Amino acid sequence: MPGISIHVVDVARGVVARGLVVRVDRLDGERRTTIAQAPVGDGGSVEELALLADQFSAGLYEATFFVGDYHRQRGEALAPIPFLDIVPYRFGIADARQHYHLPFKLTAWGFSCFRGGA
Amino acid sequence: MPGISIHVVDVARGVVARGLVVRVDRLDGERRTTIAQAPVGDGGSVEELALLADQFSAGLYEATFFVGDYHRQRGEALAPIPFLDIVPYRFGIADARQHYHLPFKLTAWGFSCFRGGA
Amino acid sequence: MPGISIHVVDVARGVVARGLVVRVDRLDGERRTTIAQAPVGDGGSVEELALLADQFSAGLYEATFFVGDYHRQRGEALAPIPFLDIVPYRFGIADARQHYHLPFKLTAWGFSCFRGGA
Amino acid sequence: MPGISIHVVDVARGVVARGLVVRVDRLDGERRTTIAQAPVGDGGSVEELALLADQFSAGLYEATFFVGDYHRQRGEALAPIPFLDIVPYRFGIADARQHYHLPFKLTAWGFSCFRGGA
Repeated sequence: MPGISIHVVDVARGVVARGLVVRVDRLDGERRTTIAQAPVGDGGSVEELALLADQFSAGLYEATFFVGDYHRQRGEALAPIPFLDIVPYRFGIADARQHYHLPFKLTAWGFSCFRGGA
Repeated sequence: MPGISIHVVDVARGVVARGLVVRVDRLDGERRTTIAQAPVGDGGSVEELALLADQFSAGLYEATFFVGDYHRQRGEALAPIPFLDIVPYRFGIADARQHYHLPFKLTAWGFSCFRGGA
Repeated sequence: MPGISIHVVDVARGVVARGLVVRVDRLDGERRTTIAQAPVGDGGSVEELALLADQFSAGLYEATFFVGDYHRQRGEALAPIPFLDIVPYRFGIADARQHYHLPFKLTAWGFSCFRGGA
Repeated sequence: MPGISIHVVDVARGVVARGLVVRVDRLDGERRTTIAQAPVGDGGSVEELALLADQFSAGLYEATFFVGDYHRQRGEALAPIPFLDIVPYRFGIADARQHYHLPFKLTAWGFSCFRGGA
């Protein structure tokens, strides 16, 4: 099944990062085209992406995670300049017939993002 | 859905760690009872665990990942004493009605294991 | 410089895990010999290990991180059976002339431990 | 000691990512000012950053890791569009009197970056 899936876990709390907004853009040189923008759902995934599987041709993409807003919405105290606020994650799709599962683990102080297997 | 799921990705290669054997034991004081032992399947999960959901009551568990064997089977050169060989991962289940998703990311030189969300 | 160094960061809070107790054992078959047990110091390291560099011959070792106690001492609410309590991290030393730097990143819900470079 | 330190480990190989080029930019709205660009040294650090401690006032920064070039220089086979090529890591400095230690762990298929403690 081609396409991208993104799954976001708040590893400071051991739960999925429900409500955290993710935007996915395609990058073509200087041009940036937004493909999807949606919050993480109850299961931890950005569900809208499942509908867009046929929109991912080979190329360069960037997911943006609105980590600062996520923590602010939860009422957490953040510095005026948070360590993580708007977090870009740039990746290439070499073969659009493959599935790219992109798990994203975060705290307010860092993140981990390794491709989750073809 | 109660129970445990384990998903294993070889993040040095960006693929699921197909064939890596995982054992799950329950620990009661000095006593260790094996609940399951099976290889990671094509999708990255230890599929046998899905059948055992009702066997996980609250308590202490240990998953053992046979990381050295996995690399040896793939023909990779390992030191006679590999950095990672038989890797224990001990965790507690406080509430057996919850699901415990346990993603495990590994290379020959380390691993990452954060609960993947209730 | 041979030996082991262990550095522990609480990535839920973005600070070193000051006070978290770490024990290092050598494993020889069924026999376990404790080499060091000490808390993480102000800089994030288990400083006692620096004095023990000449005690690490090739072989199998296990570091034990008292993660549950660390969170309890900080007054954090933990389940009666915490997800992480006493965390084993088993690793082999193939070449005792090398230095093994072992950074350990933790939250109450997981950890990451990759060898930090020779 | 104020300032930024960056330490890069190739966790697929268990060694520091010697030679990987890192650029550090300050971001002010649309404006981007490069503060440093240098390769990772023998010890795993971007040593030039130690000289620049007094250049980091509170604000938004972006480190760029030339991960694709690093793998190409090592002669590794990469797809024409690598999964990771030019990797941005954006972070805020709230308090320029603190030290920001930024360990970066990478493979060709992902990375992990949690602040390494004040």
